Amino acid sequence: MPQLRKDPIVHRWVIIATERSQRPSDFAIVREQKRGGYCPFCPGNEEDTPPEVLAYRPEPENGEADASSWSLRVVPNKFPALMVEGDLDREGEGAYDLMNGVGAHEVVIETPDHDATIPGMPIEQVTDVLWAYRDRMVDLKQDIRFRYVMIFKNHGATAGASLEHAHSQLIALPIVPRIVDDEMRGSREHFGYKERCIYCDIVHQEMQDGTRVVYQNEQFLVICPYAPKFAFECWILPKEHMAAYEEAPREVMVGLADALKATLGKLTIALDDPPYNLMLHTLPFNEEDQRFYHWHVELMPTLSKVAGFEWGSGFYINPTPPEEAAAHLRDIRV
Amino acid sequence: MPQLRKDPIVHRWVIIATERSQRPSDFAIVREQKRGGYCPFCPGNEEDTPPEVLAYRPEPENGEADASSWSLRVVPNKFPALMVEGDLDREGEGAYDLMNGVGAHEVVIETPDHDATIPGMPIEQVTDVLWAYRDRMVDLKQDIRFRYVMIFKNHGATAGASLEHAHSQLIALPIVPRIVDDEMRGSREHFGYKERCIYCDIVHQEMQDGTRVVYQNEQFLVICPYAPKFAFECWILPKEHMAAYEEAPREVMVGLADALKATLGKLTIALDDPPYNLMLHTLPFNEEDQRFYHWHVELMPTLSKVAGFEWGSGFYINPTPPEEAAAHLRDIRV
Repeated sequence: MPQLRKDPIVHRWVIIATERSQRPSDFAIVREQKRGGYCPFCPGNEEDTPPEVLAYRPEPENGEADASSWSLRVVPNKFPALMVEGDLDREGEGAYDLMNGVGAHEVVIETPDHDATIPGMPIEQVTDVLWAYRDRMVDLKQDIRFRYVMIFKNHGATAGASLEHAHSQLIALPIVPRIVDDEMRGSREHFGYKERCIYCDIVHQEMQDGTRVVYQNEQFLVICPYAPKFAFECWILPKEHMAAYEEAPREVMVGLADALKATLGKLTIALDDPPYNLMLHTLPFNEEDQRFYHWHVELMPTLSKVAGFEWGSGFYINPTPPEEAAAHLRDIRV
Repeated sequence: MPQLRKDPIVHRWVIIATERSQRPSDFAIVREQKRGGYCPFCPGNEEDTPPEVLAYRPEPENGEADASSWSLRVVPNKFPALMVEGDLDREGEGAYDLMNGVGAHEVVIETPDHDATIPGMPIEQVTDVLWAYRDRMVDLKQDIRFRYVMIFKNHGATAGASLEHAHSQLIALPIVPRIVDDEMRGSREHFGYKERCIYCDIVHQEMQDGTRVVYQNEQFLVICPYAPKFAFECWILPKEHMAAYEEAPREVMVGLADALKATLGKLTIALDDPPYNLMLHTLPFNEEDQRFYHWHVELMPTLSKVAGFEWGSGFYINPTPPEEAAAHLRDIRV
């Protein structure tokens, strides 16, 4: 019998279609051709991106801005979805609401090495990527027009990556995005009657139960969530309560780098380097109460197409129970 | 300057990225190969589907159930996402909620003609398809386990169609799906303080304004909505207030068939037969107040990939302002 499961945070139901349960080998993933050729993110091509807003250089004394000596570099997106200059100018148009598309859209070039991927990078390099997310958030938080910084990574063309050189993106937004708002509402409500963080409750229940655990280290728990939208979806949660990503110290980022490398390493082996999306969810800038929300990373391999049913209903059909996905991933050694 | 626009019903913001506005020719749509070969939906192959639950036959006296003399046929999905037998058996698992995946999953085989598409079908045939949706809803509404019937159509493999023979699907659900619930909440709220249906307000404003109108006939208005998630997204709205699709009489279905044929005809020409999803949104079965909700059809061509930003934020970046899409579609004669 298939199951209907409800996400405890945003209250979204999903269909776990157990009758046609799919294991990794059942997913026919369309492989992209390596595209090769010129890469604007490779060292030496700095003039083809807008000037850097942040860079890490192993020998800082040897590097002016936009010199090729970087180990990580953050630049504004050359084709930004939002513009960093200007005011919001909120206005109405009859029944409608409008504001200027003010925001920052930046690219984190994670490594000078064109072919590197997170599972293969040294842990120090991955920690630097996570630290760069933090550095940019701390900086963008100063701009009072922004309420949220959405950090995400698209790996593989099917998952929306337009360049193959390892990179993440961030978009600073003048509003709190809908999905984060849903999480905030659900977790605030839970705190309201239990005085506990719902994510902390989930960490506790999942560690006791064990069936959906993919990986853990001292600081982080990786699970396939109870009601995942997609097959092999994974969440990385800090074990200790922590609302705002940008407040995590360096040693926590090292733990996250380890968990991220392990999880992506397992997914890479299980699903033969699948395209995936990574999303970081953290406390909005305008929220002062840190008790009910809990930052986390979501990883979604792009294994199936979203079609009319999902678009029309917001209801997802997942062919792989998370217990099966987790058992499979747990057994892979990385 | 890009714009942030808010959907007036569900209050979802979208980014209209005017700086990189895309016209139809800018979309590189991946074409699917015609797959050919054996088709379980073609006449003569009735034994390869589960037994029909509804069929229209031009000479009903000449057709037993599952005979090949049909002009339209509805069968249970051979690989259903939900199972029609059983009880819901709601239960909790610690922080989590679970129920059995009880529901109906059916396929509407729209025509015996393997190669037919809606823009090319006679209007009577399209009216029959719409009437079959209604017939199945009226029947499934008798089952007290169900609260909603989601009707949708995937055209083209990129949009999720696994067979090319023209068909739609319906899934009867024991819960009201999230997106419909969001629409219900938004329109109920609007009614609460204005005592008007928000969809009626939109119809009124769009007919006066005209810039987002794609097509209209006596009964229906087709627009590119003010805050569309996707480029060339279209909504078909009854001009007169009407909450429940299944209560529309045959002559209204004729008007909808005309609007649907015209809109899909325009999209087919503008975007060279794009893959698309069609979704019907109507009043949930358990809602008795018919004053605030307004059924409608949504059409979404599958032109771009959904990636980390959209998955993480619920916020969509649309490269084509709806005014440009509507002007383009309006000018195409079908």
